[in-house]
Amino acid sequence: MWHQREISLRPRPRGFHLVTREVAEAVPELHELRVGLAHVHILHTSASLTLNENASPDVRRDFETWFDRVVPEDAPYWTHTLEGPDDMPAHIKASVLGPSLTLPVRDGRFALGTWQGIYLCEHRDDGGVRSLLVTLFGEP
Amino acid sequence: MWHQREISLRPRPRGFHLVTREVAEAVPELHELRVGLAHVHILHTSASLTLNENASPDVRRDFETWFDRVVPEDAPYWTHTLEGPDDMPAHIKASVLGPSLTLPVRDGRFALGTWQGIYLCEHRDDGGVRSLLVTLFGEP
Amino acid sequence: MWHQREISLRPRPRGFHLVTREVAEAVPELHELRVGLAHVHILHTSASLTLNENASPDVRRDFETWFDRVVPEDAPYWTHTLEGPDDMPAHIKASVLGPSLTLPVRDGRFALGTWQGIYLCEHRDDGGVRSLLVTLFGEP
Repeated sequence: MWHQREISLRPRPRGFHLVTREVAEAVPELHELRVGLAHVHILHTSASLTLNENASPDVRRDFETWFDRVVPEDAPYWTHTLEGPDDMPAHIKASVLGPSLTLPVRDGRFALGTWQGIYLCEHRDDGGVRSLLVTLFGEP
Repeated sequence: MWHQREISLRPRPRGFHLVTREVAEAVPELHELRVGLAHVHILHTSASLTLNENASPDVRRDFETWFDRVVPEDAPYWTHTLEGPDDMPAHIKASVLGPSLTLPVRDGRFALGTWQGIYLCEHRDDGGVRSLLVTLFGEP
Repeated sequence: MWHQREISLRPRPRGFHLVTREVAEAVPELHELRVGLAHVHILHTSASLTLNENASPDVRRDFETWFDRVVPEDAPYWTHTLEGPDDMPAHIKASVLGPSLTLPVRDGRFALGTWQGIYLCEHRDDGGVRSLLVTLFGEP
């Protein structure tokens, strides 16, 4: 059983955003799978996906602070600067965090740890709508 | 053919630990697959999984040294400090390395490179038991 | 439907290299899948795979610059130095970027974003030939 569906996430400000519920609700076929996997793929190179703590907004703010320090906008060594100062750091951050998540599925739901939630990592100042391609497969 | 099994890894000290054999032995159904994939997912946000060099303990020690320098505990910019100084750095490290591995399977075994082994990356001082959810799927 | 095929990438200099077409052409069975996934796994611990911008060579050059600064060769804290100054940094970079990509497949092609391409990330000065194990699965 395979299902593939493209979904759109509304524009968010630069930073880390919890989108677990939004993703799950966009793929109702998830409920049909007893066991399987969900592959969630972002179709962009300046935003990314990760799993992390789904409770404190502090954690998501500290993610933004750390990534901005480690991948600085004003570094003299960037040569790809045509698309603005936030562009090249966004590409680096996107690859460090990665473009996709593969999530276990059990009994019609993402089988995540108690504290795990899906983060949309928006690395641009004005990233706009972000598209995800979700692929579900497994046994009913 | 789908198999899904939750396994527990005994508590380890903070650092990088080779667990390839332990994971393989915990999922005996692996031997039934001629070709397929194994998805190994950690159900936590302060520990992670990666593949790296399976021989020298030096390599695993240097991983710990590097990650501790790049994600420092004593940074003045952390705001999520309630759960101890090792907590917020652990969340960052966990997302940089990632919560899951997808491993190719061939002839009943993980089809890894000669030098590749599975690391449990324990980012907390006292992380305790860590749970993995392993999903196997493929052709017998 | 499962297909698994080992492919070799010719030696490249240290840096980030666009290999999307080379990978796609090496797995002609891709055309038989209407919907599915492609798992692309590198069988090494000092090279890695990522998805990023497929147009400007500037972006790939800036990746190399940034990674060389954040994971420096001459750091006094490395203890695994037997295999040369580029070896231990290569292991770290490989795990930060990751050993595999899972790509959505639709209508016989990798279903990537407009700007997404596969990078071979060669972290050694003389990495030589790099082997990938590609696993395709899905519905015809």
